[in-house]
Amino acid sequence: MTVYLIGAGLGNHQYLTQQAQDLLSQSEVLIYDALVDEEMLNLIPKTCQQIYVGKRGGQPSTSQTEINHLLVYYAQQNQHVIRLKNGDPFIFGRAREEIEALKQAGCEVEIIPGLSSAIATPLLAGIPLTDKFLSRNFTVMTAHEPDKLDWDALARMDTLVVLMGGRQLAVIVEQLIAHGREKSCPIAIIRSAGTEEQQVWTGTLENIVEKTQGMKLSPTVMVIGEVVNLRERFL
Amino acid sequence: MTVYLIGAGLGNHQYLTQQAQDLLSQSEVLIYDALVDEEMLNLIPKTCQQIYVGKRGGQPSTSQTEINHLLVYYAQQNQHVIRLKNGDPFIFGRAREEIEALKQAGCEVEIIPGLSSAIATPLLAGIPLTDKFLSRNFTVMTAHEPDKLDWDALARMDTLVVLMGGRQLAVIVEQLIAHGREKSCPIAIIRSAGTEEQQVWTGTLENIVEKTQGMKLSPTVMVIGEVVNLRERFL
Repeated sequence: MTVYLIGAGLGNHQYLTQQAQDLLSQSEVLIYDALVDEEMLNLIPKTCQQIYVGKRGGQPSTSQTEINHLLVYYAQQNQHVIRLKNGDPFIFGRAREEIEALKQAGCEVEIIPGLSSAIATPLLAGIPLTDKFLSRNFTVMTAHEPDKLDWDALARMDTLVVLMGGRQLAVIVEQLIAHGREKSCPIAIIRSAGTEEQQVWTGTLENIVEKTQGMKLSPTVMVIGEVVNLRERFL
Repeated sequence: MTVYLIGAGLGNHQYLTQQAQDLLSQSEVLIYDALVDEEMLNLIPKTCQQIYVGKRGGQPSTSQTEINHLLVYYAQQNQHVIRLKNGDPFIFGRAREEIEALKQAGCEVEIIPGLSSAIATPLLAGIPLTDKFLSRNFTVMTAHEPDKLDWDALARMDTLVVLMGGRQLAVIVEQLIAHGREKSCPIAIIRSAGTEEQQVWTGTLENIVEKTQGMKLSPTVMVIGEVVNLRERFL
């Protein structure tokens, strides 16, 4: 039986693709840790078994080994298994472990694309990642292990999109300035995009740490580059 | 009246989001140049006026000035206007000219995200853009004006995604090797992703030009980096 690794987009059912909706409506077992809204769960048949593997109420999330085990177990029982993931499964989605576990057990896997927060979050904040005059390219990154990154090369990219970087903000800013990015370079920090709680802070590399002092930034997407200034013209 | 700039994703109605479908079903005027399938056009009311502004049968596409004019004209007639664009409107979508023209004319604009071929195309070819071991970041770029790019920095990114680069393949390969990327670095060239005509060529920077000699590569997305090798393990 095929297991479907589905990108849930930003968690709002409005952003689900038709393909993802069709597959959800046929699911027999749903394994999810995505931040999903009620209406998305309404797409699932009432008989579908729902297994939540994310963090809840201070409890840690289910381990990757256990998730792999669950996927293989239900697939081998010939169930229509959906593995729902935030954003797009192939963008920081840890899809590899699950795919390899399923393949090793002889199960089929199909990967279903979803809206990635890397692209959709800046858009929802009014910031294009490319622009004829200001941005010929953009780089999507995390900064969990800042020591392993090539900051010199990153500082020279037109636009940077940093996922899950709330806690590393000070390090990111420091490294970029140390490697030649101008202190006046604009930055936007976007929290909870596409929801009613969406918040956007803008500033420069020089003042953003101070401007966001004490704020809860996660779940966050940052955009660094001249394109941030287009926001005011577009909104 | 609000004009909606909608991302049509890969052109297949399966990849449209619920939000895009809802807006299309209410459209009174549709202005499009996207490569869209029949079923996507079936979502539009029969009374909707369809204006095609893309290339057709050797004829050039409608000029950007004329498109801006059409958008403003119908918006001012209080019509529900949809501007349908390939992929995501904010990724090489030339959205800026249209937004600025509409804003200057006092019209409202809303931007609706779509699946970008930058992310969805590699996925459909079985290639993740990030990986715990092989890719901490990826850069999305075009290569229309290779002389204006910082190839030294680009060559140091873990993964590169090049959109619309079919004609520049030889230059891209040459520049990356000249700036220190290994000749054995894997590359995939994906044509017409998500359609029945999908084709994928894989090779290395050293042999890909020869391997694709004489082939029609456009519309194409290239992926350059070690993640290309995951394709064989995932498919």
